[in-house]
Amino acid sequence: MHYVWFNGVVSEADKLQIPYTDLGLMRAYGLFDYFRTYNTKPFQWDWYWERYENSAVQLGIPNPLKKEEALSIVKDLVARQNGQDCAIRFLLTGGYTLDSVSMTKPNLLIISEDIHPVKELEYEIGIKVISYEYIRDMWGIKSTDYKHFMFLQPEIKAKNASDVLFHKNGFVSELSRSNVFAINGKKLVTPEEYILKGITRRTVLELAKAEFDIEIRPLGFEELLTSEEVFTTSTTKRVLPITKVDEHVIGSGKIGPSTQFLLDKINDLVRTW
Amino acid sequence: MHYVWFNGVVSEADKLQIPYTDLGLMRAYGLFDYFRTYNTKPFQWDWYWERYENSAVQLGIPNPLKKEEALSIVKDLVARQNGQDCAIRFLLTGGYTLDSVSMTKPNLLIISEDIHPVKELEYEIGIKVISYEYIRDMWGIKSTDYKHFMFLQPEIKAKNASDVLFHKNGFVSELSRSNVFAINGKKLVTPEEYILKGITRRTVLELAKAEFDIEIRPLGFEELLTSEEVFTTSTTKRVLPITKVDEHVIGSGKIGPSTQFLLDKINDLVRTW
Repeated sequence: MHYVWFNGVVSEADKLQIPYTDLGLMRAYGLFDYFRTYNTKPFQWDWYWERYENSAVQLGIPNPLKKEEALSIVKDLVARQNGQDCAIRFLLTGGYTLDSVSMTKPNLLIISEDIHPVKELEYEIGIKVISYEYIRDMWGIKSTDYKHFMFLQPEIKAKNASDVLFHKNGFVSELSRSNVFAINGKKLVTPEEYILKGITRRTVLELAKAEFDIEIRPLGFEELLTSEEVFTTSTTKRVLPITKVDEHVIGSGKIGPSTQFLLDKINDLVRTW
Repeated sequence: MHYVWFNGVVSEADKLQIPYTDLGLMRAYGLFDYFRTYNTKPFQWDWYWERYENSAVQLGIPNPLKKEEALSIVKDLVARQNGQDCAIRFLLTGGYTLDSVSMTKPNLLIISEDIHPVKELEYEIGIKVISYEYIRDMWGIKSTDYKHFMFLQPEIKAKNASDVLFHKNGFVSELSRSNVFAINGKKLVTPEEYILKGITRRTVLELAKAEFDIEIRPLGFEELLTSEEVFTTSTTKRVLPITKVDEHVIGSGKIGPSTQFLLDKINDLVRTW
């Protein structure tokens, strides 16, 4: 069973309700962050917290908790999972409004959730993505705004794809909830503009730097399509090969050696986290 | 006291709570519409309903109600106000999610609310707006996404303004929740791209057509600043003069004769609605 800490009170997750006047619901005025545990320890806590705080500042929603308080709440929620790993979601909104637009006091939820792992087979054969011309509004922060991904889901499904690759003006940016990398030989390229900077992206860049020539720069759509290997990174996916973009096959059509190397590296890291 | 119809059940507004797993809250996957009554009759119901249905189609959220059913719910909520006029908000979301991204069944709330009228003095002296470079994401539909307006509110207040005027590439589009018009002589100009097409905008265009030469086209920021009169239209504002943009005074700095003419026209219309 999962639990939610809501403004200081812990409830069973399936029982928690909140007034509909929350500005997160009424005005999409909300942000979140999301991480998981390995060996019941929050993965890269410091980096996730830093990003959460930055989203709150950028969106103008006061974050009501100090880092130490937040960590102690997280530890309590994790302990309630009896040794099982879980995901943790922070959800910070503008709080209740009396006139549909004015903020008084933010609402913060800290939620434990099941982890939804990628199918093992997808680590071998990779995933297919569809391309879509779009740059996320306020791309640098983790607002709750995923409406484009939400309304694209039927199309993704209809095309037997797993996700969407956003691009604009000839350059790719990110997937709906994960970052993208291209590999050619020892060259590893990933963009840093028009993306949410993922914590797994940051982890992989650390793991890769001894073995690859890293280029942090705009990544052309054509360059991506003709790359030897392409992969995506996220909290739940870690390092996952992308082997098809629309109807275009990338590289060998299955996981390549460099992607496998980085997947092994991060799997080693999390095994002993 | 106000009431909310929620998926078929009517509750007192201040008692209604909904599970936090709603996609409107978790993923900003929601849309709304908003209108008011005059003489307890919903104003321009047909036009508002048409816009609501269009938002639902564009955002891919199935609208669970037929027009006649919706109108009968609205009439019930209005009747509970004992002869007082009220505002009605439709709020349609992607519904509860089990995995934080998949939609199963939408949630629809129909809410009665107090009307928040504009101060009488503002109809004489007009309002000040600040300018901000931005085009609303999915500008043609009434999604719940108002995060830019939300985080701009402290700046609007600090500058003694009432609202924000969005512009981009030298052209103005709209205010945070209302449309914009410029008048020079008998020429009435309003944009139709990068805006949410307001129902009051549509009403005013009808009322104006016998007296003005209407130009529906891109409206330059400089053209707006040097216009004789500028005004904004919305459900709650009707026709409201804008007399200051940032530190720039528009026209005489108070309501002009053409704006007054259109304000009188719409006031006549709603008086006998």
